[in-house]
Amino acid sequence: MINFNYSIPTEIFFGKGSISILGKQLKRYGAKVLVVYGGGSIKKNGIYDLAIKLIKESKIKFWELSGVEPNPKISSVRQGVKICRDNRIDCILAIGGGSVIDCSKAIAAGYYYGGDPWDIVTDPSKIKKALPVASILTLAATGSEMDIFAVITNEETKEKLGTKSSYMAPRFSILDPTYTFTVSKNQTAAGTADIMSHIMENYFNNTEGAYVQDRLAEALLKTCIKYGPIALEKPDDYDARANLMWTSSLAINGLLDYGKVKGWSVHGMEHELSAFYDITHGVGLAILTPYWMEYVLDNNTVDKFVEYGINIWSIDKNKDKFTIAHESIEKTREFFNSLGLPARLKEVGIDEENFEKMAEGATRHGKLGEFKPLSKQDVINIYKSAL
Amino acid sequence: MINFNYSIPTEIFFGKGSISILGKQLKRYGAKVLVVYGGGSIKKNGIYDLAIKLIKESKIKFWELSGVEPNPKISSVRQGVKICRDNRIDCILAIGGGSVIDCSKAIAAGYYYGGDPWDIVTDPSKIKKALPVASILTLAATGSEMDIFAVITNEETKEKLGTKSSYMAPRFSILDPTYTFTVSKNQTAAGTADIMSHIMENYFNNTEGAYVQDRLAEALLKTCIKYGPIALEKPDDYDARANLMWTSSLAINGLLDYGKVKGWSVHGMEHELSAFYDITHGVGLAILTPYWMEYVLDNNTVDKFVEYGINIWSIDKNKDKFTIAHESIEKTREFFNSLGLPARLKEVGIDEENFEKMAEGATRHGKLGEFKPLSKQDVINIYKSAL
Repeated sequence: MINFNYSIPTEIFFGKGSISILGKQLKRYGAKVLVVYGGGSIKKNGIYDLAIKLIKESKIKFWELSGVEPNPKISSVRQGVKICRDNRIDCILAIGGGSVIDCSKAIAAGYYYGGDPWDIVTDPSKIKKALPVASILTLAATGSEMDIFAVITNEETKEKLGTKSSYMAPRFSILDPTYTFTVSKNQTAAGTADIMSHIMENYFNNTEGAYVQDRLAEALLKTCIKYGPIALEKPDDYDARANLMWTSSLAINGLLDYGKVKGWSVHGMEHELSAFYDITHGVGLAILTPYWMEYVLDNNTVDKFVEYGINIWSIDKNKDKFTIAHESIEKTREFFNSLGLPARLKEVGIDEENFEKMAEGATRHGKLGEFKPLSKQDVINIYKSAL
Repeated sequence: MINFNYSIPTEIFFGKGSISILGKQLKRYGAKVLVVYGGGSIKKNGIYDLAIKLIKESKIKFWELSGVEPNPKISSVRQGVKICRDNRIDCILAIGGGSVIDCSKAIAAGYYYGGDPWDIVTDPSKIKKALPVASILTLAATGSEMDIFAVITNEETKEKLGTKSSYMAPRFSILDPTYTFTVSKNQTAAGTADIMSHIMENYFNNTEGAYVQDRLAEALLKTCIKYGPIALEKPDDYDARANLMWTSSLAINGLLDYGKVKGWSVHGMEHELSAFYDITHGVGLAILTPYWMEYVLDNNTVDKFVEYGINIWSIDKNKDKFTIAHESIEKTREFFNSLGLPARLKEVGIDEENFEKMAEGATRHGKLGEFKPLSKQDVINIYKSAL
C-alpha cells in the first residue's frame, strides 16, 4: 500500500425525499445560484419544478444554464462562466447526471481563472479556486457527484479531456434513488457499465498490499452485478436504484484508489471514442473493456484475473490460471451483453478511420495505464480487436 | 436501504513518514495545542520526541496531559478541560490509541460546556461545539481517529458510556502503520477483535436492501482475518499493519452503517465488563461475540448467519442453514482463539457476582441492539453462557 492523503469532504443527502434540505444547504454557500441542467427531462419528471420551488421558498436568487449536452462541451462552460461573472453568482447547483455536474465544476473553476476555461481542462494545476458546487443527481454512473473530476469536450479540436481539482468536489449532493426510476434501459445499462469500469480501473492495478482496497472494489462490483439487471427489469425497484446510486459515488470518490499507484487504461481509450463519435461513455467502456482485458492478459497480469474470476464470477479455483482468466473475461463480456449493451465498435457506427488519431490522443501524455502500460500501437490493436 | 446523511470530514494522512505534515496541519487550527497521551510508550518508541520536535519547529506552543489510561476516565477529561481553559488552548492533539483519542474528544467538547463533563457523556445533545481535535494513531482498533464517538468511564459510578457528536470528529489523523510495529501480540489481537466487532455490529442487522453496505463489511472482515494473524506473527509486516490500520478507520467511520437502522449489541454488553473489571475492550468483545451469536441465532436471524458463513468462512452453501450458521459461529470463535484471545469470562477473572448490575446497565435505555433486541434477562443469559 502506498501513502495517501484522504479527504472526501462532500456531504451526501441520500434517500427518497432528501431534496427537502436543498434550500437550507444552498444558503450556506450564498444567495445567488446558477442552476445548470440538460435537455429538459428534469422538467418532465418534476424534479426541476420541485427544486425551483424550494429555491424560491428559501429566497435564493437564481439563474439558469440549460441544454448542457452529454459529453459536455467547452462552449457550455464558457457560457456558464459568463453568466456567473455577469451576475456575481455565489454557487452552482447542477441538476442531472455526470455531464451536467462536470460542466458545473468546470464553470465553477473557470469563474476564477483569468483566461479561457479550456486551459484549466488541459492543465489542472491552473485551478486555484472554484465556486462551491452542489448537485442533485438524476443518473447513477459517473460518480461526479462525489469526486474531484470533470471531463470536458472541445468540439473544435475533438479533444475530450479529464481535469481534476479538490476545489471542484461538490460541497453536497442530493441522491434520491427515485429520481432514477425514469432512466431508460439503455442509460441504466450504460451507467452500470460506467460504474463497473471505474471500479475495474482501480482493481486491475499492480500496487502490492492494497488488499482492503481490492476487497472493497469487489464489494462494489458485486453490487453492480446484482442490481444492474434488476434495475433494467424493474426500473422502480428502490433498493436496486439505491444500491447502484450509492455505488456510483463510492466507486470513484477515492475509496478504491487511495493507497494505490494511479493510472487508468480503458477510460483514456474511450474518451477518444466519445470525443470523435459522441457515443455514450458507458457504452464505449462496455465495448472496450473485454478486449482490453484480453489484450493485457499475460504471465505478469494473470494472477489479478484469477483473483477477479474467483472472487467476482465464482469460477472454480482449481482450474488452470489462464482458463480462469479467460473465463472471467468472457463472463464480463456476457454480463455487459446481458444488459443489452453492444459488443463491438461497428455496432455504434465506429470504423477504422480515426483509430490512428484516437490512439495518438489516448497516449498524448505517454504510455496509457498502470496495469500494463499501453503504447499508441497497443491502443490501435485494442481498437481493432473491438471492431 | 434507509435514508442517510453522509459526512466524513476527517482528513487522513496515511503511510510511513506522514507525520511530516504535523506542523503545517496543526497551524490551520491554532497556535496553542494540548498534547494528550497515555502511559509513555510513545516516549520509548520515539514518536513523542518526533512530534514535539515538529511542533516546536512550527512555533506552536504546547501543553501536555499524560497518563491517560485505557478505558479513559472522566477525571482525566476534567483535568484536560482545566488545562485547556487555563491556557486558552486552540486545539488538541491526541497521540495514542482509542482511549487517548476518546479522552481528547471529550476534553474538546467539555471545554465549551458549562457544567461537569460527565453530563456530555450521559447526554450527547449537550455537545454544541468542540475544540478541533487531531490525532496521531498508534494502535489499530477503535477507529476513534475517524469517527464521532468517545467512550468514557466514570470510575465512581462504574459506568462506561459512549457519547457522540459530529463536532468531535477529528479534523485530521496521521496513520503511520510503522507506529504499530511495537504493539504487543495481545494488543494486536484485541485490536483486531475490536475492529471485527465494529464491522459485525453493523453487519448483523435487519435493514433490508443494504446490500452494498454488507459487501463492504465483508471486505473489511476478510482484511482482518487475513492480516490479524500476519501482524501477530510478523509485527513489522508493513502491509499487514497498513491494512489493519486503514480497516480500523473504515470499520466505524460511517461507511458501513450509513443506510442501516442503527443498534449495536455486543458493545453495550462489553462496556459493562470493562467498566466493572477494567479489562481490555477487544478481549471482552472477542469473548462475548460467539456466545451472543449462538444466543441470537433463530429462525428469523439464521439467513444472516448463512450469508456470513458462506461469504466470510467459505462454508459449503449446500449445507443445511443451521449447520452453516453454527459452523460460522464456531469459525469465529476459533479465529479469535487462534489470535490467542481468551474464550471465557472466567479466564479474565470475571464471575457471576455483577451480572445482574451489568445487565441492568447494558439495558439502561431499553432493549439492547437491533438485530435481535436483548432484554436484561437475555444479557444475563449471554454473560452466563460465556462464563
